[in-house]
Amino acid sequence: MADQYVSIRNLNFILHEVLNISSLSKFDYYKDYDKDSWDMALQAAKDIGDKHLFPSYRIMDKEKAYFKDGKVWTHPALKEGIRAIAEGGWISSHQSYEDGGQQMPSTMVNAAQVIWYAANANISSHAFLTQGAANLIYSFGSKELQDSYLGQLTSGAWQGTMALTEPDAGSSLSDLTSSAEEQGDGTYKILGQKIYISGGDTLAVDNVVHLTLARIKGAPDGTRGISLFVVPKFRSENGDLVGNDVITAGIYGKMGQKGYVATHLMMGENENCHGYLVGEPNKGLSYMFQMMNEARIGTGLLAAGTASAAYYASLQYANERVQGRLPSQKNPLSPPIKIIEHADVKRMLLYQRAIVEGSIGFLMFCSRLSDVASVGSGQEKTDANNLFEILTPIAKSYPAEWGNFSVSQAMQTLGGAGYTDDFPIEQMYRDIRVNAIYEGTTGIHGLDLLGRKVVSGNGISFKLFIEAIQKTAARATGDHGKKLAQLLLYEAKSLHECTLHLTGLAAKEGPDVFLADATLYLEYFALVTIGWQWLEQCIAAEKGLEQTGSSSDKDFYQGKIQTARFYFHYEIPKTRSRHMTLMGNEKITLETKKEEIQ
Amino acid sequence: MADQYVSIRNLNFILHEVLNISSLSKFDYYKDYDKDSWDMALQAAKDIGDKHLFPSYRIMDKEKAYFKDGKVWTHPALKEGIRAIAEGGWISSHQSYEDGGQQMPSTMVNAAQVIWYAANANISSHAFLTQGAANLIYSFGSKELQDSYLGQLTSGAWQGTMALTEPDAGSSLSDLTSSAEEQGDGTYKILGQKIYISGGDTLAVDNVVHLTLARIKGAPDGTRGISLFVVPKFRSENGDLVGNDVITAGIYGKMGQKGYVATHLMMGENENCHGYLVGEPNKGLSYMFQMMNEARIGTGLLAAGTASAAYYASLQYANERVQGRLPSQKNPLSPPIKIIEHADVKRMLLYQRAIVEGSIGFLMFCSRLSDVASVGSGQEKTDANNLFEILTPIAKSYPAEWGNFSVSQAMQTLGGAGYTDDFPIEQMYRDIRVNAIYEGTTGIHGLDLLGRKVVSGNGISFKLFIEAIQKTAARATGDHGKKLAQLLLYEAKSLHECTLHLTGLAAKEGPDVFLADATLYLEYFALVTIGWQWLEQCIAAEKGLEQTGSSSDKDFYQGKIQTARFYFHYEIPKTRSRHMTLMGNEKITLETKKEEIQ
Repeated sequence: MADQYVSIRNLNFILHEVLNISSLSKFDYYKDYDKDSWDMALQAAKDIGDKHLFPSYRIMDKEKAYFKDGKVWTHPALKEGIRAIAEGGWISSHQSYEDGGQQMPSTMVNAAQVIWYAANANISSHAFLTQGAANLIYSFGSKELQDSYLGQLTSGAWQGTMALTEPDAGSSLSDLTSSAEEQGDGTYKILGQKIYISGGDTLAVDNVVHLTLARIKGAPDGTRGISLFVVPKFRSENGDLVGNDVITAGIYGKMGQKGYVATHLMMGENENCHGYLVGEPNKGLSYMFQMMNEARIGTGLLAAGTASAAYYASLQYANERVQGRLPSQKNPLSPPIKIIEHADVKRMLLYQRAIVEGSIGFLMFCSRLSDVASVGSGQEKTDANNLFEILTPIAKSYPAEWGNFSVSQAMQTLGGAGYTDDFPIEQMYRDIRVNAIYEGTTGIHGLDLLGRKVVSGNGISFKLFIEAIQKTAARATGDHGKKLAQLLLYEAKSLHECTLHLTGLAAKEGPDVFLADATLYLEYFALVTIGWQWLEQCIAAEKGLEQTGSSSDKDFYQGKIQTARFYFHYEIPKTRSRHMTLMGNEKITLETKKEEIQ
Repeated sequence: MADQYVSIRNLNFILHEVLNISSLSKFDYYKDYDKDSWDMALQAAKDIGDKHLFPSYRIMDKEKAYFKDGKVWTHPALKEGIRAIAEGGWISSHQSYEDGGQQMPSTMVNAAQVIWYAANANISSHAFLTQGAANLIYSFGSKELQDSYLGQLTSGAWQGTMALTEPDAGSSLSDLTSSAEEQGDGTYKILGQKIYISGGDTLAVDNVVHLTLARIKGAPDGTRGISLFVVPKFRSENGDLVGNDVITAGIYGKMGQKGYVATHLMMGENENCHGYLVGEPNKGLSYMFQMMNEARIGTGLLAAGTASAAYYASLQYANERVQGRLPSQKNPLSPPIKIIEHADVKRMLLYQRAIVEGSIGFLMFCSRLSDVASVGSGQEKTDANNLFEILTPIAKSYPAEWGNFSVSQAMQTLGGAGYTDDFPIEQMYRDIRVNAIYEGTTGIHGLDLLGRKVVSGNGISFKLFIEAIQKTAARATGDHGKKLAQLLLYEAKSLHECTLHLTGLAAKEGPDVFLADATLYLEYFALVTIGWQWLEQCIAAEKGLEQTGSSSDKDFYQGKIQTARFYFHYEIPKTRSRHMTLMGNEKITLETKKEEIQ
């Protein structure tokens, strides 16, 4: 049996039985999709994962990328994998037929991404970045930019990146100092350093196209003076590609994701770096938010994918490894049992499954919202957008943070073996950790959630969130679903109460007190959100169980119901500590002086 | 400023102000120790850490140990470090003056261990194992064995190990199959494989002495038929050292602790492996428990040490790195601030400190108990031993499990930089993870805690634990201490209630139901235990604050009080979820069939 890294059965359950993806074909843009085309797309994605991604996951860690003679050498599997994804039409899949795309909903593209991230994030991260860069040029770039770049990007010949971070502007983008100066011909001269640029250079592609944030000379301070540029490694001059003075100073030695480099780039050291403005001046950050939002969902997908692969690796071990006996078995001569029979091992497996499938279900739910927000109309579109906005910090942070715990339990399931490189889990443990840092740390997303998303538009997004939970609870008619719905409604009420308490603090005591524990608030919000999503899955599973006659389906649905119950029994109570801490009238962190921590 | 990895101020606070280590000199065995000798010992340990351990921590990861031509090559720093510790007399420090030792209490030896583990666990783990092996021969070995081995072990010329685990006997030691056959001359012929043997081979020493568990032919099944042997790599024959047929088959590729090998050993493949029985036949496991208990505390010390080093690395970064502004500062032109000023960064630092100093304080408390259990008499000795027994699973598991979270928050404090090898934290993140697996996984310790320690002797240990908490609470007279004492008493009552509920289940529903969530029970017990220890520290800090005139002392005590408050405000509420889950009448893991998890 081949090693499993993802469950297609689970993806189909989520896409069809939970989300009814077929209903997306009511939108004109997606009207050509039917059951057969969803199935074909998913199978095509799985084939790419099986053939071109999964086999090279571990070797790309052992034979990691390196920097030599000014070049970034990556594993040969990278080129093959990028090409396989590109040739499947996936990089331009969102785009319209007339522009060479497939008008495919994010829900399906992201289901494919889960598969690929689970198979080998080293490769699929590259493809994802190129997709995001292409989408950005597609959405906001001039016809000329589109003609120059989209073909090469979507074919996988060129790599796309997002070039935001600078040595002194990481979490605080408003402090970025890279500059752009008009050269009189409509192009700009770029000068600056960009660090931690993922996929920022590799010999696996012919060119790298950096979607770069910089300030046009004389622009306003802060985020209102940031513009977006296309800055290629090689620019076209009279039909030839010539060096564009984007120098790779080095790559970072990273704990994981060693097949996927983070580069330090120097742009314009020789005053010969051309940048091409995307859209209007000073609107760069608002454009970049499209790619940042995609990247946030993408980071969630990456983390969920890695946790998925670790789950199946630990499940396989638990199915095979024989050790120990049940506590009730006192005879040392009785045969030892498979470790999957031990309650604590089952707990570790159910825990992982609750996180992995809870994350995947939630990310698909968010993807569906983004599709409706993108092609829908009227109130439906507005609501979808508002709900998507408040859920984005969770979609990024829950899989990233809890994914670490999940992979850690995968390792624990194997005991000592899990810590060795005889098994892939130690790599997954190293790889997944960066997701809580990528695309805004969890702390930054806490501030985004509580400081912006919860309060914006008079709390409209939060209201939609609570209503959505109530609607799901109202749909629960099965025995288990009804019980879980009651628990969930209590949690929603409790979170609402806490939210009012905190926004009250904002009014009374100002933003520093209001936001001091925003990270805890995000954790609280996330626990409730994933509970909501598990109730959705429980409802669908109880329905499926009623309707099926197949015994493997019965096991599947029963397993879903058990995992939902597990989540509510073991995970949902963890909201209580966050509630108590947030509702307590303490300002310990604010009051502690830095001299007292030394 | 040199990089800091541990706080001597904190160790002195714990040893003197919290634990009153000087009171140990009331025992005859420790009577020569006074304030000066404690200070000298601690300073000597710190000097070794500074000079011989810390400088090589990172290089031993990058230039990791490897296996070639049947030999294990370790970094040159290893030999130097082991020698430095041995020459300080530390390996035999527990032993009596007449046997060449220093009659030093574990409390002091383990304070030294914290320093060394924080400085460089690759080296100090070797020394610790040798110490444990020497102690075992010292306690139970014949005069002849002692004469043959103790000198070489305590000089650091030879390495000691504990050789328990086999391919089919990891968590379940009762299944071990390594065999021993009497050869007629009082020695035994050993045959078997041992895996994951830490420090099992290295060219840094002249010989390796494996304290090995094996079954004498015809011995009873299960744990009652296990004997303990000294099995050296080279045995003495007519004054020469000759090969003893202990073959290193290889070393494991590990995620971390790469300077400290785990070996796969084959003993007796050529029928020429001699073993020397320690003590009586079939009592091996009971002897080995001495070393296992030392190793459990040692694992806690290791984890706490690594978390300590990560804490100071992140603190240094937070003191230096400038980024962002407070939420109340809306002017993008205002100067950015040091990140230690951000509430969320303070939270991550206080969180680490709560875990690191909570662990260290608790481990020193346990060490003091083991000293009283070892040299005390009467009821005091019995009580100390009983309390030590129930606390051992926590002393091993709390620093190991929460240490992972702590180092993760250290990494998060650095953001992207923390994921790179420009900083030491990524190594610490990899290194610390194994502690939840070493010396019994957390799941095994959950079973030990609830299935043995809580119930044994009619619950005498648990009763002592609750009484100890009540005594501490009664001593709290300061404003903060009194508040925290009330919270702690509630927790103790609640844990007691939960314990009665579970032991009730044992009677009604049998051991499988009773022990199904033993890991959660351990987490619950651990959270309360560390709360108790923070109350101890808070009481001492409030007292110190009253008495001091120095402003740096005031900051130190104030920081202690803030950390204690932090622990009770942010961590103690996490008991609630464990309480709810354990008290709920669900058997989800037991009821879930393995077919439902596939």
